[in-house]
Amino acid sequence: MTLDAVLNRIDEDLPQALERLMDLLRIPSISTDPANKADCARAADWLVDELRALGFEASARPTPGHPMVVGHCGDAATDGPHLLFYGHYDVQPVDPLSLWDRDPFDPEIQDTPKGRVIRARGASDDKGQLMTFLEACRAWKAVHGTLPGRLTIFFEGEEESGSPSLIPFMQENADELRADIALICDTGLFEDTAPAIVTMLRGLLGEELTIRGPVKDLHSGMYGGAAINPIRVLSRILGNMHDDQGRIVIPNFYDGVTELPDAIRQQWQSLAFDHAKFLGDVGLSVPAGEQDRTPLEMIWSRPTAEINGIWGGYTGDGFKTVLPSDAHAKVSFRLVGEQDPFAIRENFRAWVQSQLPADCKVDFHGHGNSPAGVMAIDDPAFESARAALTEEWGRSAAYVGCGGSIPIAGYFKTYLGMDAMLLGFGRDDDQIHSPNEKYDLQCFHKGIRSWARILEKLV
Amino acid sequence: MTLDAVLNRIDEDLPQALERLMDLLRIPSISTDPANKADCARAADWLVDELRALGFEASARPTPGHPMVVGHCGDAATDGPHLLFYGHYDVQPVDPLSLWDRDPFDPEIQDTPKGRVIRARGASDDKGQLMTFLEACRAWKAVHGTLPGRLTIFFEGEEESGSPSLIPFMQENADELRADIALICDTGLFEDTAPAIVTMLRGLLGEELTIRGPVKDLHSGMYGGAAINPIRVLSRILGNMHDDQGRIVIPNFYDGVTELPDAIRQQWQSLAFDHAKFLGDVGLSVPAGEQDRTPLEMIWSRPTAEINGIWGGYTGDGFKTVLPSDAHAKVSFRLVGEQDPFAIRENFRAWVQSQLPADCKVDFHGHGNSPAGVMAIDDPAFESARAALTEEWGRSAAYVGCGGSIPIAGYFKTYLGMDAMLLGFGRDDDQIHSPNEKYDLQCFHKGIRSWARILEKLV
Repeated sequence: MTLDAVLNRIDEDLPQALERLMDLLRIPSISTDPANKADCARAADWLVDELRALGFEASARPTPGHPMVVGHCGDAATDGPHLLFYGHYDVQPVDPLSLWDRDPFDPEIQDTPKGRVIRARGASDDKGQLMTFLEACRAWKAVHGTLPGRLTIFFEGEEESGSPSLIPFMQENADELRADIALICDTGLFEDTAPAIVTMLRGLLGEELTIRGPVKDLHSGMYGGAAINPIRVLSRILGNMHDDQGRIVIPNFYDGVTELPDAIRQQWQSLAFDHAKFLGDVGLSVPAGEQDRTPLEMIWSRPTAEINGIWGGYTGDGFKTVLPSDAHAKVSFRLVGEQDPFAIRENFRAWVQSQLPADCKVDFHGHGNSPAGVMAIDDPAFESARAALTEEWGRSAAYVGCGGSIPIAGYFKTYLGMDAMLLGFGRDDDQIHSPNEKYDLQCFHKGIRSWARILEKLV
Repeated sequence: MTLDAVLNRIDEDLPQALERLMDLLRIPSISTDPANKADCARAADWLVDELRALGFEASARPTPGHPMVVGHCGDAATDGPHLLFYGHYDVQPVDPLSLWDRDPFDPEIQDTPKGRVIRARGASDDKGQLMTFLEACRAWKAVHGTLPGRLTIFFEGEEESGSPSLIPFMQENADELRADIALICDTGLFEDTAPAIVTMLRGLLGEELTIRGPVKDLHSGMYGGAAINPIRVLSRILGNMHDDQGRIVIPNFYDGVTELPDAIRQQWQSLAFDHAKFLGDVGLSVPAGEQDRTPLEMIWSRPTAEINGIWGGYTGDGFKTVLPSDAHAKVSFRLVGEQDPFAIRENFRAWVQSQLPADCKVDFHGHGNSPAGVMAIDDPAFESARAALTEEWGRSAAYVGCGGSIPIAGYFKTYLGMDAMLLGFGRDDDQIHSPNEKYDLQCFHKGIRSWARILEKLV
């Protein structure tokens, strides 16, 4: 059993693998801060060296921002699917530094009540995660003598600063980067120990609207009662965007929303999601969405309409009896299934317009849109990966949703025409983007072993 | 006919009266600017000198702010009612100075397409208006040899800066200031040529509310759909504060709202208020209040509920997919008749509370309250003044409402127990508080004549 040999090798090599991760964590590759530009380049070079040492043809590729790292092994003649693995070597800023218990770039293995952790900025997001794959390749090579099948490695250095170079780089290097499927390791486990593959990502549509009434701010004594108040109009319209059952009333809003397949619903039920804790952690107790849906459906498979910001009139200290001439809101929609962001934008705008009193006008400003991502789980690679994760973690791996948007998956689909499989080993308490970020040793270790099992099944 | 003699005297003396007004206008008595403190004292002294020259016992009375001017003539033995006349000698600041066509404190008589005007800061608000009464007294004395009846003159120097000394001064000098009725000259004509006595002032209640949901701001990807959004709750509640007919739905809100007496309604109809112009001037066309009310009723005799400010979530440039932990609004109510501000506050708060979802809390903060002012027009002084104004202007004088709040009338009632009659001769285009303030010569002249006629009937 070569798999057992690979897994044993991983177990034996763990101390050295940790040393290598800590080397990478010592490089303060904060992509958003120009002061760290050389550090980002250094992190890219470090990864190129690692990849080359493993036998990849690898290079750091310049961009107008930070370099991309690309490595290859195998070629068109190699058996099995061509896999692309994506991660990012840049990290979030560390402020406020005073809230860290130690230097964020001086990593340390610490014992905690919940187990041993690697404490450092980037430990979980995403250096620790991307190293799980490289360490799996290393063990594989040690046992097999070769790297696993045909692989392309693609590391970005701008993920935490909006990925400005990503799409141009994908477009310019499409032939080189295109593979059969992308593996993205930047997500987490489900509730600490249940492995999960993200197969549903919600899309996002942002709209800003301004309702205009009188040509100027009015005195509420002189005009109050006779003049229309745009805040009242805005509140009335947006306040009635949901019905009493939590459903969104914009016409045709649910077009393209599909019901969850039974198999997925069963998997989700088996996750035994603790919705009381999920809401309780933020001081809530009652799910606010559609009343015939579970909280997990609400955040993973159902669309939303939310007011993310509202403002108008006098908002300072004290009081001013003003009837303002305009009122504003920022509204966003999380989209699922086949919902069409452009159709929803038009339907939303028409719905607002249809409710305006005669004396009001509305201006809209779009804030970007992306459709939902639904992964093609009929590709056998998904079932293979799910089986591999289930074997490693001893709990049935599930196809899960992700309420937020992870643009990279959509970019792979749009610009390279390939599906993506998102799986990772982070935990909710990893404090990514916050002080005292950590990655559990168990996650790092079992993450490496998970990839070995997945590669065994895929290549 | 001594009245004719007094009126003739006024006509003959008009050039000198204008000179005196311009002397007063040259004093830059801006009460809010500490740099003009001495100017305010100088304006007070100027008025004391004028009053003494006319035969009043008068003095400037120190306060922690600017002086009050108090003058008296007659005593308890004098026949007829004891009248108090109120005006204010302080003026608004003049910024932006660049928008003035000339020095705001270098008054000038100018010819305009609509007639001759006195151009200067304070010409209309309130130096020109208060001088109409003094000039009427002057002409009266020239003809009669004595001042008219028993009079108390009360000039304030802090009206444009919130009257901080007014209530303490009234309380400390209540016996000296109390009269049978107060005459307040700080309002205007109705649509240029119709004289008017304000007999209804709307009250005001201010409330600020904060709706709280999650204990912290949430990410709308992670929680959107499952977590309650306080902006949505706030919008829904406030957006439904009015029904489809424009009526306010807060329970018992209309308790104490009385229907307009037929006589007043007829007077208002005779005013032929141009509501198309009233709304058209601010870019509107459709009255927004209760659909079975005229716009004049809406602003003078009907209560309102208005959202004067609203804010929550992300309100900066761009977009942030935040579910905020709280949302805020400032709401005010204009009150009429016998509406009880305290009862409405309680009813409003209970009404909001009753609509809160289980997971939300609300905090309220009161921003002051005052009941509506309804003048006792059964006092014969009102009918006398109305007849006098009708005779002078050749148009039937009306008892009108005022949508805003004029605190001084309420203070006279509360602290001195006397009713107030508000009448004045300003016009809507006087640009009070704005650059190029003016007072029409016709208003000044006929204003003096109006007071002579009123005094003739009252004393």
